[in-house]
Amino acid sequence: MVYSLNLGARVRYRQGVIVDGEPRPPRRVAPGAARREGAARQAGLRSQNLALVVAQVAAAGTISRADVAAATGLTRATVSSLVEPLIAARLLEWAPAPSSSGSVGRPASPVRLASATRVGLGLEIGANHLCASVVDLRGERLAFREVRGDLAAGAPTASLASAVELARVTLAAARAAHPGLALLGVTLAVPGIVRRGVVLDAPRLGWLDVDAAAVLREVDPDVAVTIGNEASLAALAESHARPASTFLYISGGVGVGGAHVVDGVVQGGVHGFASELGHVVVDPDGPDCRCGATGCLEQYAGAQAVARLAPHEVGRALGIALASAINVLDVAAVVVGGGLGEALPGLRPALVAELETRVLAHPWAPVDVSAAAVRDYPGLHGAALAPVLAALADPEPLLAAGAR
Amino acid sequence: MVYSLNLGARVRYRQGVIVDGEPRPPRRVAPGAARREGAARQAGLRSQNLALVVAQVAAAGTISRADVAAATGLTRATVSSLVEPLIAARLLEWAPAPSSSGSVGRPASPVRLASATRVGLGLEIGANHLCASVVDLRGERLAFREVRGDLAAGAPTASLASAVELARVTLAAARAAHPGLALLGVTLAVPGIVRRGVVLDAPRLGWLDVDAAAVLREVDPDVAVTIGNEASLAALAESHARPASTFLYISGGVGVGGAHVVDGVVQGGVHGFASELGHVVVDPDGPDCRCGATGCLEQYAGAQAVARLAPHEVGRALGIALASAINVLDVAAVVVGGGLGEALPGLRPALVAELETRVLAHPWAPVDVSAAAVRDYPGLHGAALAPVLAALADPEPLLAAGAR
Repeated sequence: MVYSLNLGARVRYRQGVIVDGEPRPPRRVAPGAARREGAARQAGLRSQNLALVVAQVAAAGTISRADVAAATGLTRATVSSLVEPLIAARLLEWAPAPSSSGSVGRPASPVRLASATRVGLGLEIGANHLCASVVDLRGERLAFREVRGDLAAGAPTASLASAVELARVTLAAARAAHPGLALLGVTLAVPGIVRRGVVLDAPRLGWLDVDAAAVLREVDPDVAVTIGNEASLAALAESHARPASTFLYISGGVGVGGAHVVDGVVQGGVHGFASELGHVVVDPDGPDCRCGATGCLEQYAGAQAVARLAPHEVGRALGIALASAINVLDVAAVVVGGGLGEALPGLRPALVAELETRVLAHPWAPVDVSAAAVRDYPGLHGAALAPVLAALADPEPLLAAGAR
Repeated sequence: MVYSLNLGARVRYRQGVIVDGEPRPPRRVAPGAARREGAARQAGLRSQNLALVVAQVAAAGTISRADVAAATGLTRATVSSLVEPLIAARLLEWAPAPSSSGSVGRPASPVRLASATRVGLGLEIGANHLCASVVDLRGERLAFREVRGDLAAGAPTASLASAVELARVTLAAARAAHPGLALLGVTLAVPGIVRRGVVLDAPRLGWLDVDAAAVLREVDPDVAVTIGNEASLAALAESHARPASTFLYISGGVGVGGAHVVDGVVQGGVHGFASELGHVVVDPDGPDCRCGATGCLEQYAGAQAVARLAPHEVGRALGIALASAINVLDVAAVVVGGGLGEALPGLRPALVAELETRVLAHPWAPVDVSAAAVRDYPGLHGAALAPVLAALADPEPLLAAGAR
């Protein structure tokens, strides 16, 4: 099954989930428990409450059921009735009780997200590398593998077959170290435009209209497969490191991508194509871009341009494009990732000068610019986190399956 | 009381409400009925259900209670128990029954939004005019007054005193025609940056840091006063004419403004400063802008530029700036309002050519460009609608007051 979690303005959980361009059906009525009465409403409430408890535990790290009750407004009895099946489903686990209180397993014992039980598998394909990682519910990486080579030279089918193989090897390595791991889902990060599991265009790979999800289903036919934009997934990883924050993410490597994260949710736009910051116009009379336009940011801040231009020129172009984006979005924080994040100290003066000049609301709402916290394969890490965060945001379907 | 309804990604009602820049407190838990149990949850449910019924009636125009029940999933008894107080509060009214069924007032009678009972008062201040209108729950205009003159020449206090006077006169005119009108709120549209009732900067008026809400409270100390950006309010009016739609609105007159509407909700950004399309960069080496930057869209598409430039130059600049905005937001529809909307036929060829070249996802997601449906004082109409839509989105507080 391919799943497409859409990230419009309406996604209700602040832990990020990833869009791959499924159009959202129009809603006729307001969301929430008010939509159905009786049994259906009770079921909806239980589902919401399970998600609420998991979100509270994830935010707190380790927390007692009493504190979960206090934070959520649920009764202690309700919290206990929800925690038990979550532990049985290996989503939560008991944590050691503080030394002043009783032994593990007593009612006062705190809970936390389970370690090395249910995992997400992430894959990333770039022009010169293929890599895979497995992360657990806490976001801890349990296995990692990478293959280097010219992936753009081969057919997409060959690259995807390699990805399936690498996924199996990486998952096997994780399972060897942690027996009993259950796979939640597989997500592939690609440098391109994606819709419903299909890579529409990934110029750096030479891919056009590649149904990547269909191939990746071979990894495990029982779990969800999602294909996501690399920068969106990198922003998801960054968001996991800065819970519930709002920022504009810009990522520079061979190409330049971006993502707009609002309260921890990556915004997909109408089709899942939002935040293509590499193609914001810097100068309409500027150099030709591979996209067919002229003077796109990528021609000033992509790897080739960065190697050729002086840092202040790159910083100026970044500042011009980001100022346009900030005038549109109104964000207070810009996070710079990838190679541009590493180069930020040299780029910052010219970048900040353009923001100060060009962001209309700057006098009342200055913009903080910082390097990304996640620097180690952020796209891959976000890909592995995506199925995990989707599961934590909607844990109920996993309860029926018990602790399989 | 000044109220500031914030429009982040979380606003739950698709009928628009207006932000004026109140920072949103961080939310620790997911929204919805799951947050509280027992009596508080029941109260929350009733409040949600009231809003749900009103939304359904507003969407349908005229609808039977049975059809409201079918559409919302509520029982008929629940719908009836909600409709009765909504009628008592003069938010809904009985509609004539279809000729085949019984007489008015029987249980099968359809309901609709009440006409000429509760109203919003809108005000708009521009460089050369001041106007006011009163609209009812259906969005029908009950009164309109306008004063022309050089408002930028006088002190803000003088302009605001004139606004208070015009508001009273317009409200009196509406009440003369429709005795018993109850005022829901007052909203002022200004061409500038607004935060929490204060106009931070409205260069075309010469206003800096003007506490407009404090003055406008004199119209009626018992109702909410909101100050909103003119383009945001114009987009709210447009959204009311295209229910639950998603579009990027761009409005051109003396200046150029914009708004991003998602499922009928105007997006405010972090501070309420979003969608300043007039200051998206067209050409960093272009003409000086009054904002201190260079080459902003306003220098190519504001009234002075439009009078000087050839239409294809204006259209090209619009296309460049809109392409950047669309690459950031991913929208499928652009709505052009104000003077630019009137001029759209001449601007369209160059505008569309730039979008086709510069919107990265254009091959998969073409962008529809259309003139605004609301052409008659859209900012003013949105200002008058704002308190109405806020009341319809959250009707419960009006029930306690009965049919006053």
